[in-house]
Amino acid sequence: MQLFGKQEYTIRWNPKGCVSVIDQRLLPHKLEFKNLYSVQDTFQAIKDMVVRGAPLIGATAAYGLVLATFHAKASCNIWDEVESAYTKLLQARPTAVNLKWALDRCMKRIEGKSAEEVHVLLFREAQLIVSEDVQVCEAIGENGLELIKAIYEKKKSTVNILTHCNAGWLACIDWGTATAPIYKAQSEGIPIQVWVDETRPRLQGANLTAFELMQQNIPCKLITDNAGGHYMQHGLVDLVIVGTDRTTRTGDVCNKIGTYLKALAAFDNNIPFYVALPSSTIDWSISNGLNEINIEERNSEEVNFVYGQYQGDVIPIRISPDNCAVGNPGFDVTPARLISGLITEKGICEASEVGLTTLFPEKIEA
Amino acid sequence: MQLFGKQEYTIRWNPKGCVSVIDQRLLPHKLEFKNLYSVQDTFQAIKDMVVRGAPLIGATAAYGLVLATFHAKASCNIWDEVESAYTKLLQARPTAVNLKWALDRCMKRIEGKSAEEVHVLLFREAQLIVSEDVQVCEAIGENGLELIKAIYEKKKSTVNILTHCNAGWLACIDWGTATAPIYKAQSEGIPIQVWVDETRPRLQGANLTAFELMQQNIPCKLITDNAGGHYMQHGLVDLVIVGTDRTTRTGDVCNKIGTYLKALAAFDNNIPFYVALPSSTIDWSISNGLNEINIEERNSEEVNFVYGQYQGDVIPIRISPDNCAVGNPGFDVTPARLISGLITEKGICEASEVGLTTLFPEKIEA
Repeated sequence: MQLFGKQEYTIRWNPKGCVSVIDQRLLPHKLEFKNLYSVQDTFQAIKDMVVRGAPLIGATAAYGLVLATFHAKASCNIWDEVESAYTKLLQARPTAVNLKWALDRCMKRIEGKSAEEVHVLLFREAQLIVSEDVQVCEAIGENGLELIKAIYEKKKSTVNILTHCNAGWLACIDWGTATAPIYKAQSEGIPIQVWVDETRPRLQGANLTAFELMQQNIPCKLITDNAGGHYMQHGLVDLVIVGTDRTTRTGDVCNKIGTYLKALAAFDNNIPFYVALPSSTIDWSISNGLNEINIEERNSEEVNFVYGQYQGDVIPIRISPDNCAVGNPGFDVTPARLISGLITEKGICEASEVGLTTLFPEKIEA
Repeated sequence: MQLFGKQEYTIRWNPKGCVSVIDQRLLPHKLEFKNLYSVQDTFQAIKDMVVRGAPLIGATAAYGLVLATFHAKASCNIWDEVESAYTKLLQARPTAVNLKWALDRCMKRIEGKSAEEVHVLLFREAQLIVSEDVQVCEAIGENGLELIKAIYEKKKSTVNILTHCNAGWLACIDWGTATAPIYKAQSEGIPIQVWVDETRPRLQGANLTAFELMQQNIPCKLITDNAGGHYMQHGLVDLVIVGTDRTTRTGDVCNKIGTYLKALAAFDNNIPFYVALPSSTIDWSISNGLNEINIEERNSEEVNFVYGQYQGDVIPIRISPDNCAVGNPGFDVTPARLISGLITEKGICEASEVGLTTLFPEKIEA
């Protein structure tokens, strides 16, 4: 997507032998690229959230394995290098499903191959992970576009879309998931306005989604997480699109904390509520999101402190009394009954087992 | 209530001829009292939100009129002084209903009286406004206590209550509205835990509610505005109590933005959702909150910036891209259908015209 007028991916291989990523901790206040030269650099970038977002974490880890072999000295055992890189990278963000998925995929690719082939095979696999993600996101965009088009054809004026957190290109390689239909609609000339939930505690909406939409010249308004229901009550939201971290086979969606509240408000006001997802986020092994998904309790500092820009620096300020106890669940579960449909790379379906297995018939249980 | 172990009101007349208030802009980071010596001081304290909360604003304005007469020189016309103070104070917060109510009430008290009586009459009226507010809030506490008691008798363990924004004693003189039943329950020995919504954009939950509950030694946990629905889904909320800025005769409630989302979540999870209110907030002239209440759009800076403590000072940090457009509605309307009941100083009633006119039969339309 566009970044200060230049077409960019969130991650690029630099032929000099490093990986170039955007330091997302500084957004939207500063744009700085960071070159990762080693496994250690890659590990640190994932751990410190220089890069975040499931697909981007996966791609970064894959390039981490490439870096393990790129710099391997002739004298050393390349298998040892790769194995130790794998073990290290896996620990960078223990709960990130895509991290393990990408690393395992790369390791499988080199199974039984000769040491001479390893570097090239890992490099090709990393490039493939990147290009596949771009294709999947673009397909989600094309499918979701139909929803926006239909609203526009009926309404004949600006389509108002609300989104929560950042399921944008900054979390992926390009396009994003929830944002992909918006970018596609823009290129079709459909007038769009996006309500961006700021998304406390980490403010991914304020820091990332508002930033990336503004970079694409898409009109948007930042709102507090409290405000969306009010706009829905007053007919100012035509469609909600959010992302998901994990989806059950029955269509329950586990996404950033607060998603459930927006789904309730959309349902109460008869507004379509869609979830955009690559099919890789579907966990076919679980059927009840509320009972079967364990919600991570995150650090209390995320609630007690807010990060932002002050006199040129990004600093944390304390917003609560000293010693204030905190509850900080990272995600919540939106039951399928509140979801109008799921936008996948294969098409749109009902949020239900029937809906999902219609798109993915290979997953029908024997 | 307790403030660092001392029993305090939010506002006190100092016999030396000034009004002493807590500078609420500095809470929870610093406790500073401010003495207001003149109409100008009082005006500025209301305007700059040194004091906030409808009842406290009303009381402060009433004392402002007292100060106009206390310092009036023998040579000047006391009626001119009072009249000009009235006009000035009325402009301090144009949308605050209680401000006009308190000022009008004081002016009425001195109608047709002699100049010699004015000071004493205004002083008595201000004291009366204060003591009446304390009584009303305490009565709300006694009435709301019954709800908490009933839950405790059934549950026999800690009662978990969620509240939004600050409808606490800091917004009033003592007790608060939504907090009054909580303080009463504590004094009855009922174990309580309070989930405190931080309440963006102005963070009254994080800054004020968490602070005042901690000062009374009531166990509480600060949460983001996104989190309440999740806790309700998991059975961790037994009761929601919020305040209100304006209530229709049919029981619709206009309160701090985000209240509607919590009401939806409570309804979806079959959790009692109560609104605590002095009957002075009921607007008997309107019947449809969504159509008839015009929601104030507030300053975009409240969303783009967050205030908090950094290295001993309270400063604003920017959390969004430069030039980010913002939507910032100050309130939303929770329809009566989502409200389990209204807790007033006269008792608890259904959120409906029948419910309200049962408690206030004098309001039945001819």
